[in-house]
Amino acid sequence: MSYSSEGTQTAVRWYPPAYDVRVESVPLPSIEYPDDAIVKIKLGGLCGSDLHVYRGHEDVDAPLICGHEFVGEVVALGASFGSSASGRPPLYSTLQIGDKVVSPFTVTCGECHFCRVGSTCRCVHSQLFGIPALPGGQAQYVRVPKAGGTLFKIEGRMSQISDSSLILLGDILPTGVFAVLQALQHPKLLPAVTSQPYPFSSQPFAAIIQENGIDVPRSLIREEDKVLTIAVVGLGPVGICTIVSLLDILSKSKTAFKVVAIDPIEDRRNKVQEVYKSIQENGRGNGTFEVASINEGKNIVSGWTNGTGCNAVLEIVGNNSALLLAYDLVRPFGVISSVGVHQGPQLPFTGRQVYDKNVSFEFGRCPVRAILPIALEVLLKRQDVFGGVGEAASLVEKIVGFDQAVESYELFDKGKCGKVLFDPWR
Amino acid sequence: MSYSSEGTQTAVRWYPPAYDVRVESVPLPSIEYPDDAIVKIKLGGLCGSDLHVYRGHEDVDAPLICGHEFVGEVVALGASFGSSASGRPPLYSTLQIGDKVVSPFTVTCGECHFCRVGSTCRCVHSQLFGIPALPGGQAQYVRVPKAGGTLFKIEGRMSQISDSSLILLGDILPTGVFAVLQALQHPKLLPAVTSQPYPFSSQPFAAIIQENGIDVPRSLIREEDKVLTIAVVGLGPVGICTIVSLLDILSKSKTAFKVVAIDPIEDRRNKVQEVYKSIQENGRGNGTFEVASINEGKNIVSGWTNGTGCNAVLEIVGNNSALLLAYDLVRPFGVISSVGVHQGPQLPFTGRQVYDKNVSFEFGRCPVRAILPIALEVLLKRQDVFGGVGEAASLVEKIVGFDQAVESYELFDKGKCGKVLFDPWR
Repeated sequence: MSYSSEGTQTAVRWYPPAYDVRVESVPLPSIEYPDDAIVKIKLGGLCGSDLHVYRGHEDVDAPLICGHEFVGEVVALGASFGSSASGRPPLYSTLQIGDKVVSPFTVTCGECHFCRVGSTCRCVHSQLFGIPALPGGQAQYVRVPKAGGTLFKIEGRMSQISDSSLILLGDILPTGVFAVLQALQHPKLLPAVTSQPYPFSSQPFAAIIQENGIDVPRSLIREEDKVLTIAVVGLGPVGICTIVSLLDILSKSKTAFKVVAIDPIEDRRNKVQEVYKSIQENGRGNGTFEVASINEGKNIVSGWTNGTGCNAVLEIVGNNSALLLAYDLVRPFGVISSVGVHQGPQLPFTGRQVYDKNVSFEFGRCPVRAILPIALEVLLKRQDVFGGVGEAASLVEKIVGFDQAVESYELFDKGKCGKVLFDPWR
Repeated sequence: MSYSSEGTQTAVRWYPPAYDVRVESVPLPSIEYPDDAIVKIKLGGLCGSDLHVYRGHEDVDAPLICGHEFVGEVVALGASFGSSASGRPPLYSTLQIGDKVVSPFTVTCGECHFCRVGSTCRCVHSQLFGIPALPGGQAQYVRVPKAGGTLFKIEGRMSQISDSSLILLGDILPTGVFAVLQALQHPKLLPAVTSQPYPFSSQPFAAIIQENGIDVPRSLIREEDKVLTIAVVGLGPVGICTIVSLLDILSKSKTAFKVVAIDPIEDRRNKVQEVYKSIQENGRGNGTFEVASINEGKNIVSGWTNGTGCNAVLEIVGNNSALLLAYDLVRPFGVISSVGVHQGPQLPFTGRQVYDKNVSFEFGRCPVRAILPIALEVLLKRQDVFGGVGEAASLVEKIVGFDQAVESYELFDKGKCGKVLFDPWR
């Protein structure tokens, strides 16, 4: 039965100014441009950054259909799709009605400079799902622009994975991986991995050094210098994704590590303890892991490093108190990888503070489409955390119908529940 | 004739609160700790960051001997030096009275964690020369703490280089190289060098990717994506060092590039034009180079990149207007490498601005001792810029006696002269 855009669907809509979501009947989406697809949604996610809209912090003054995480099935394709699309991203040629797909939380054309070099979150066609101009995924159907670049087709070994697991590829798991890679790939952390001192620790310029006969100093690096000490600040769902990715990647890199996961909320810390218990049973490399409140975290880092501080802090909150804590925890010549969605306030540092500590900051949105291949590996390997629903170590707490949407926003806003998914057909 | 610390020497002293330097007779320094050396100064430099003290911006309330750049000859060594110092940095065993040395601008022990991993500017014994507690290099003699780690011995092919060239290794040339490497080694710039998209562009985690059979996407990178566009903001002496290093390293990396050098002061722009003319005569790779005022610079970058902005901005000024210009010029997912010495004001960005542009910031002091081997190659190859004094393309404008110290501070403070060196024996 072919899709028709006549008629209505049910969706979760937010109304300005704040704290007002309603489940309503709205028109069905239609193909507006040749590169569009329509996806019938199987699950739509409720994400921490939905709360920025919910709380009225996004300066939006029109109603919108919420949500930027979804997994579903293609039900309509624009005129661009088909065998004539050679030279464009592969899905323009290969995507079929009925294919299962997951989408990054922003439109990603796959063809512009930013997409080509991997900074896909800054695609020139970038639009966030769940704004007035682009209805989101807490609905029964959604229009996906530039769909041959944006969508990720679920096939092969992914076919066995549950929808409630696959949906994590749309935002929070890649965002966790991104937080990790921004730190671990930074030249300031590489001496621990390569046993060469900065700036000889990162190798793309090795050719220059060799060609010029530069006298690279003998490495004095000791085993104790090769222990990476990392703090994760913020243990909501993205924080859990970050920790799982971090432990996974560190273990595989054969780097010794000490990781502390910090959050003021006890329920979140307990959840991370359960996640860690499960990870441990599956092997976790040669590292140390602790879960701590803010003050405990400061003491742990100080004890581990003789007051020096962490090599890197992964900041998964998105406000100035989290940034200040990150600054306190990081060592001189360390890295703050900040993937929290920050708002209006001015950054809480003087120029002198950042100069005096040689801080590197990595800010911004995850390039989900570019990170997806790595996130997918983590997802497949960590089904103990990402595969189930509502178990002790599960990231996803529950799947509910839209009848529980209003209540779910309220609970999630107060930190009283974990990751919630909506089944729009329940 | 062995050194005696009895008697007096001539030195340039600064007095609080501001704009007050005097040439005075002060006591000779003496060995205070076993790791100390006394260096008889041949040349002492006047550096842009001396102006922070001069202008009273450093919150210092006691007089001090100025200067943190010097080249000289070892005249006394503490008890640590000699054949019994095995296992310590090599100079504790090998340094001799009479050796010529250059010093980084901060004490660098060579033995702590920070020194071992290459973040030598954050040595646990770090002290800046030219503070009340550590008299500086605008004097006839200077005490150097942790001298076996701090000092760099001039020998071999360096012996032919003039003192007025060698002194540049103490601060400004390594600082220029550092500004460059912080940008070029950043994972966000590596797609242009490796032809792989982020995050696959940096290789230390290649092993993880291979081991896990991650499906690395086919690279879509085009020739146009491999042109690095870089702006240098601030064309004082460190800015010149940055440009020479940048053009040198880019040319050797065989990366196509477009570089714009920006300063509001016409004299500085003219100087950089002369420097570039000299560099061009010696070959400069496959790039484009322009010198521009602030508004010209914005237009050039916009034209080169269709409004996208630079891959990286090297900020060599150290104030908020330079940082704001850097933010304007940098593209989304770009890098701001800031080596200017920043002061008290809060950083002029909201969290939202840095999130929305995915900006990476690299702040702080150059780890001179770690960068020295690379800076030395640039110094040796670019004697057209770094070798002479007072010629059109020379970085050093003049060498004067202390009788011209007061006047030199005044002119330099007003941007009315270039790099000045003091010969304390003239």
